[in-house]
Amino acid sequence: MNDASRTNTRALPMPDLRGSFPGPFPASPHASDIEQHAVQWLHTFPLISSPRALGALSDITAQGMARTFPTADQNGLFLCADLFLWLTAFDDAHGEAAGARDPARLVRRISECVHLLAGHNDPPGESSAFVAALRDLLARFGERATPTQYLRLTAHLRDNLFGILWEAHHLDRPEHVTMHDYRAMRPHTVFVRTVMATAEVTLGYELTDSQRSSAAVRELETAVADLAGWINDLASYAKETADDGPSPLSLPTLLMRQHKCDLEEAFRLASHMCEKQATAARARITELAASKERPLIVHARAVESVASSYVWHIDHSRYQIP
Amino acid sequence: MNDASRTNTRALPMPDLRGSFPGPFPASPHASDIEQHAVQWLHTFPLISSPRALGALSDITAQGMARTFPTADQNGLFLCADLFLWLTAFDDAHGEAAGARDPARLVRRISECVHLLAGHNDPPGESSAFVAALRDLLARFGERATPTQYLRLTAHLRDNLFGILWEAHHLDRPEHVTMHDYRAMRPHTVFVRTVMATAEVTLGYELTDSQRSSAAVRELETAVADLAGWINDLASYAKETADDGPSPLSLPTLLMRQHKCDLEEAFRLASHMCEKQATAARARITELAASKERPLIVHARAVESVASSYVWHIDHSRYQIP
Repeated sequence: MNDASRTNTRALPMPDLRGSFPGPFPASPHASDIEQHAVQWLHTFPLISSPRALGALSDITAQGMARTFPTADQNGLFLCADLFLWLTAFDDAHGEAAGARDPARLVRRISECVHLLAGHNDPPGESSAFVAALRDLLARFGERATPTQYLRLTAHLRDNLFGILWEAHHLDRPEHVTMHDYRAMRPHTVFVRTVMATAEVTLGYELTDSQRSSAAVRELETAVADLAGWINDLASYAKETADDGPSPLSLPTLLMRQHKCDLEEAFRLASHMCEKQATAARARITELAASKERPLIVHARAVESVASSYVWHIDHSRYQIP
Repeated sequence: MNDASRTNTRALPMPDLRGSFPGPFPASPHASDIEQHAVQWLHTFPLISSPRALGALSDITAQGMARTFPTADQNGLFLCADLFLWLTAFDDAHGEAAGARDPARLVRRISECVHLLAGHNDPPGESSAFVAALRDLLARFGERATPTQYLRLTAHLRDNLFGILWEAHHLDRPEHVTMHDYRAMRPHTVFVRTVMATAEVTLGYELTDSQRSSAAVRELETAVADLAGWINDLASYAKETADDGPSPLSLPTLLMRQHKCDLEEAFRLASHMCEKQATAARARITELAASKERPLIVHARAVESVASSYVWHIDHSRYQIP
C-alpha cells in the first residue's frame, strides 16, 4: 500500500468513545515495575527474539496492564502482564502468518500447551520456552486462584489457542468466514475474556453462579468482548494492510463484503457498532455499580477498566505503521 | 491390504488383560433402553445419515455405556450415551478423513461448538444438527452437574475437539508425530478422560481437590487413559489398514518407527505397554477401593468400570473388517 492510501486509512472514520469511556484512565503506580519485570521474565523465558519487539511489547503490556487493573497489587499485575505477554508472543511466533503457512506445526505447538492446561505436567524430553513459560504461569495462577477460577482461566486459554488456530486457517481466506463466525471467534483472538477472567484472581473476589449468569453481567462482558476486538481491528487495519497483501481477516473486510460498500463506509459502520457496544457496556457498568452486592460492584469496575485498557491501547505505537 | 495380510493382522500378538480386568463385566439392566433412546435421540438430532452406521453405533454405545456405569440411573446413562454418540458421530462426520481433506472446514465446525462450550448460547442464523445436539447435551449436563463438574466436563470436551483437529492434521503424516505427542493426545481422541469426568456427574459424587490431585488418582486415570487409546489402536489396526492406505496414525506405526521393527514386534511391544498400564490401574484401584474416603472408593470403582468398558468394546463388531 502506498503512502497516499496510508494517509487515507488514517483519515477513515473512527469510533468516538469519549461519551462512554472518556479517560484519562487511572493507571497503577507500578507501571514501570511491571515493565522491568516483563523484560526480566522474557529474559528467563526467551519468547521474543527481536530486542526491539521485546521492548515494544513490554512497554505496551506494562502500560496496558497498569490501566487494566489500576488498584491491583504488584504480584497480581506481574502475573497478568506475563500471561498477556505469553499470549501475544505465542500468537506472533506461531500464529498469524507462521500458522497460516504451516497449520499442522501450529497444532503441534498448541498440543503441548493443551497438555499442560489439562493438568499434565510431565515434561517432554525437551520443552520449548513457550511450554516452560506456560508451566510457570499456570503454577503461579494455581497458587493464587481458587480451583474454580483456575478451571475457568484454563478454559479461556484453550479458547485463545483455538482462536489463534482458527485465525491461522482463515487468514488468507476471509471469504469462508461468516459475520457470525467472526463475532464468535474475535473475542478469543484478542484475549479479552481471558483478561476479564483474571480480574477475579487478581482482585480477589468471586462472582456467585447466579451473578455470573445474570443478564447484566453477561451483556456487559459480551459488549466489552466485542468492543475490544473491533477497536483493535480498526486500529490495526492500516498496519495489517501496509504490505499491500490481501484484505485482512478483520471487521472492515467482512463489512465491505456484507454491505457491498467501500472501506470508508465499512469503517463508519464498524465505528457505529463499537459506539453501540461501548454505550451498552457503560449502561451495564452503571447498573451493576449501583447494586447492593459487593462482588457485582467490584466486577463492574474491573470490567470497566479492562475496557478502558483496550480503548487506551489502540493509540499505542504497536499499531502505528513503522 | 489383501486377505492374507488381514489374516496376519488378526494373528498378531494382543494384550492379555485377563489378569487385570478379567470379566465378565457387570452391565446395567438398562442396556436395551439405552439403545432405544439412542436411536430416538439420533432421530431428533440426525448426526448419522447411514441407517447401518446408526444402528451399529447405537448398539455399541448402549452396550458399552451399560458396562461403563453399570449402577447408574437410566437418565444418567441416556445422557452419557448421547454424549459419547455425539463425540463419535462428530469425529466420523467431520474429523478423520474429512478433516484431513479440509482442516479449515473442520476448524469452522469446531468453532461453533467452542462457542457453546464457552457459554454463549445465542443461536446463529441456522444451526447444524451437531450444534443443536450439543446445545441439548450441555443443557442436560448443566442441570445435573455442579458448576465445577460442568467446567471440568466442558474443558475435556474442548480437548476432545482439539484432539480431533490434531489427528486430522497428522493422519497423513504420522512421521511428524513424536511418541510423546502421541501419548499426550491419544486420550483426547479416544474420549476416555471425558468419560471419566462424566462419572462424577452420573454417579453423584465429587472428589475434593486434594483427592483429585493425589498420586493414586492421577496415576489411575493416566493408566486408564493410556490403556483405552492403545487397546483401541490395536483392535482397530486391521480395519484402518483394510483399504491398503498409508500407515495409520496409531501406536503400532510409531513403535515400528521408533524401534525399527516389523508389525508383529510392534504389536508385541504395544501389548506389553497395555498390560503394564492395566496392571498399574488395577493396583491403584485396589489401593483406592481400600481407602476410608467414600468418594475415592466410588471413583476407583467408576474408573474400573470405565476401563472395563474399553476392554470390552474392542471385541465389538465396529472394529471388525466388514
